Amino acid sequence: MHNTDDNDAKTTLTHFDEAGNARMVDVGHKPETDRIAIATGRVTMAPETATLIREGRAKKGDVLGVARIAAIMAAKRTSDTIPMCHPIPITRADIGFELDDTGVSIEARVDTRGQTGVEMEALHAVSVAALTIYDMIKAVDRGMVIEHIRLDYKEGGQSGVWQRKGNT
Amino acid sequence: MHNTDDNDAKTTLTHFDEAGNARMVDVGHKPETDRIAIATGRVTMAPETATLIREGRAKKGDVLGVARIAAIMAAKRTSDTIPMCHPIPITRADIGFELDDTGVSIEARVDTRGQTGVEMEALHAVSVAALTIYDMIKAVDRGMVIEHIRLDYKEGGQSGVWQRKGNT
Amino acid sequence: MHNTDDNDAKTTLTHFDEAGNARMVDVGHKPETDRIAIATGRVTMAPETATLIREGRAKKGDVLGVARIAAIMAAKRTSDTIPMCHPIPITRADIGFELDDTGVSIEARVDTRGQTGVEMEALHAVSVAALTIYDMIKAVDRGMVIEHIRLDYKEGGQSGVWQRKGNT
Amino acid sequence: MHNTDDNDAKTTLTHFDEAGNARMVDVGHKPETDRIAIATGRVTMAPETATLIREGRAKKGDVLGVARIAAIMAAKRTSDTIPMCHPIPITRADIGFELDDTGVSIEARVDTRGQTGVEMEALHAVSVAALTIYDMIKAVDRGMVIEHIRLDYKEGGQSGVWQRKGNT
Amino acid sequence: MHNTDDNDAKTTLTHFDEAGNARMVDVGHKPETDRIAIATGRVTMAPETATLIREGRAKKGDVLGVARIAAIMAAKRTSDTIPMCHPIPITRADIGFELDDTGVSIEARVDTRGQTGVEMEALHAVSVAALTIYDMIKAVDRGMVIEHIRLDYKEGGQSGVWQRKGNT
Amino acid sequence: MHNTDDNDAKTTLTHFDEAGNARMVDVGHKPETDRIAIATGRVTMAPETATLIREGRAKKGDVLGVARIAAIMAAKRTSDTIPMCHPIPITRADIGFELDDTGVSIEARVDTRGQTGVEMEALHAVSVAALTIYDMIKAVDRGMVIEHIRLDYKEGGQSGVWQRKGNT
Repeated sequence: MHNTDDNDAKTTLTHFDEAGNARMVDVGHKPETDRIAIATGRVTMAPETATLIREGRAKKGDVLGVARIAAIMAAKRTSDTIPMCHPIPITRADIGFELDDTGVSIEARVDTRGQTGVEMEALHAVSVAALTIYDMIKAVDRGMVIEHIRLDYKEGGQSGVWQRKGNT
Repeated sequence: MHNTDDNDAKTTLTHFDEAGNARMVDVGHKPETDRIAIATGRVTMAPETATLIREGRAKKGDVLGVARIAAIMAAKRTSDTIPMCHPIPITRADIGFELDDTGVSIEARVDTRGQTGVEMEALHAVSVAALTIYDMIKAVDRGMVIEHIRLDYKEGGQSGVWQRKGNT
Repeated sequence: MHNTDDNDAKTTLTHFDEAGNARMVDVGHKPETDRIAIATGRVTMAPETATLIREGRAKKGDVLGVARIAAIMAAKRTSDTIPMCHPIPITRADIGFELDDTGVSIEARVDTRGQTGVEMEALHAVSVAALTIYDMIKAVDRGMVIEHIRLDYKEGGQSGVWQRKGNT
Repeated sequence: MHNTDDNDAKTTLTHFDEAGNARMVDVGHKPETDRIAIATGRVTMAPETATLIREGRAKKGDVLGVARIAAIMAAKRTSDTIPMCHPIPITRADIGFELDDTGVSIEARVDTRGQTGVEMEALHAVSVAALTIYDMIKAVDRGMVIEHIRLDYKEGGQSGVWQRKGNT
Repeated sequence: MHNTDDNDAKTTLTHFDEAGNARMVDVGHKPETDRIAIATGRVTMAPETATLIREGRAKKGDVLGVARIAAIMAAKRTSDTIPMCHPIPITRADIGFELDDTGVSIEARVDTRGQTGVEMEALHAVSVAALTIYDMIKAVDRGMVIEHIRLDYKEGGQSGVWQRKGNT
Repeated sequence: MHNTDDNDAKTTLTHFDEAGNARMVDVGHKPETDRIAIATGRVTMAPETATLIREGRAKKGDVLGVARIAAIMAAKRTSDTIPMCHPIPITRADIGFELDDTGVSIEARVDTRGQTGVEMEALHAVSVAALTIYDMIKAVDRGMVIEHIRLDYKEGGQSGVWQRKGNT
């Protein structure tokens, strides 16, 4: 269920120097490559709440449309919010939703061409989409829970393709 | 496990007008009251990763210290990120962490005195704390998952105290 | 067509001190009152472009939905963008659109309770709604023009109600 | 007066996918080219108001100087405000004003080298310059109107040079 | 030269809880009072550089005018930049400059009515004014130094008036 | 003590056009080069205050840890705050502190690969680190002074290496 498939030898945290001080990792020496990251997450809710979203969409009270805009805007501002994230001019952001009987599944894909990856941008987009859904429905259902925010896929850079195990 | 304990009669989404258009809800008529919100969440990870965080703390490579600052700053900027959130000058923000063998549990408490609640501020703080932890350790463990972001408690305003069922 | 119906005696610019230096006007002595501002504007376009927006709405490619979110978020951040604007926690923001054969008319209403008015918030919202519409359709029609951004109505504060002449 | 001189065949809105969902268009495959955009606009006002600005300049109560700074800062932050705009590190921003008897004409030129154009940056700069002028004089003349915000010229990218018809 | 005239008994840092974790201090219980803070600082430079600024002013190449706008905008955004600063809607900001033969002296006054003081807003304004001056002249004189940024005066709140010793 | 070791011939301010209007300098024609800037500064304080910081570090009430995060985040947002600064995606940011008996010395190094330098990013980082230290200790010692913020070293770009005289 949980996997750690990176190089085992990598057992130090690069975001700290030898004295243990936090730093923004130097990426200046890395080549620019095309990069993609896909992250997913889910908001679970009462069945009546899911119904309300579904009916809203039909009548254009579009919770998911608002969440999509919020997520795209958040992807662009990730390095404003996450302290050690490098600023990256992203070239693409797509947010998908699937509404079922007990909640909404969220997927975000972010692309760039640059010296560092866009995992945090994709994860931030999913997280803000989930929070926006919560915000717009909370008057009806405060018990909603945001679940399973995680990276599903990344490509580009020296570490190449990474895919969550058991995801295929 | 999931609960919807708000007034059943409240079955419309206040963030939309009658034509279904999104709007920022009018809170101008509400009285100012003292408000508290507490939200929680968790980052699950491989045991070796949790060990790395624990050892880092000892040596002052303090992942959780960075996440705490990020979360406090995010709480202040919630209305910049969540489209329909009212801007609220918060008066307090506390972030707590508990590191165990398979991850980090996060709790955020936010207070204000105002016309609307601070649930979104507390949830946003938890979410950004989790993303920051992920960012700082992702070179070691990309498989981490952010789980169970949810409201645990709120007080203040017309709806009074709300507490997650089964939380006591 | 153009009107200047304020007190004629007010012939100095309050945003400058006696030496001519720009400043943020002191509003600390003003009482808090309920305030409303309504602003309007228009994006003119080729008839085929207006048709494209109309059809998009039907199919949920909702240009105006995106513009509405952008406008609400912009209203909240007005004092970040307009140098001498006071930061104001707004309590309400509503954006309306009317699509006709040659363009889109935009109306924004913003409310607050505070020491200074929300005219700039309403004008900023209209302006950002117009720019967002332009952005989303520019690949089809670069010739669009943003027109007639103006204040239509304000109430609250010492100067009371102001209404654009010829608007009734 | 209004022109649509783009390729007639381009009759779909690229900012939406086939299902009608808003997205940030993928520009990752586009080559980097030098890009320029020039936009213009105007604030119309009562003659006495224009006189006040003119006299202020002489005495250094410089409304247009403040508007210029606001416009340059806004050009840099366009992608923070316009939801589907790509983040672009601009390399130049120039703002010009012409004050006449009934108002101020504004021109903004923005340059970059990148994968997408800077039309929105130039239009945003003009729009914020106009709003700042309004803000600084509104105590004297609330009736001012912001007019004719539009793209006048662009070059760079696959679509090459675009010039507003009748502008020469 | 250096003074510590606060209550000697106050020997713990309020920005940390008992476990040593950083937090935003709870100000929710404090009464709202009128608050003023005045901070000062200085940019020292070569005499020829000071002359260049003086001549620029005469010709309207106004370095100090730009620095003033930057400082006012920075005062408003202090809590975005300083992690533990409470968000405060300020009601006034004035920035003064004195240009002499070897530099520019800067003074910022910020007012609010609120539960916490505006010292950081005034200090941030001075700091950003100094950085902006540096930025605009650095092509001519990289050796400039920013000096003596400090609080000179504050009033309001429980601790009442504080004035730097030897300042009268 | 103060040095102006740039080319003497450079006696005009590039941030203004011939008419004296402020502008963002055109850097579009400059080649991309690797760039480094190092800036330093100092917060002076009463000896008891320095002791408090030292003890706090031991107990994990880590003033300098918070200041480091604030400085790194500020480096990334420099062009949001300094009006004529170009937006630059930085590739590295390191902040160092040295605590002695009467204060804290601060050093910031920022790297990028781009068309313009990162002096302002390094200076901004030092300045925000100093302000954050002030903020977190001000309840104990309002008399602290921020001193000697200056550029120490830069390399990259057409002007090559610059080093503060007397720094070796």
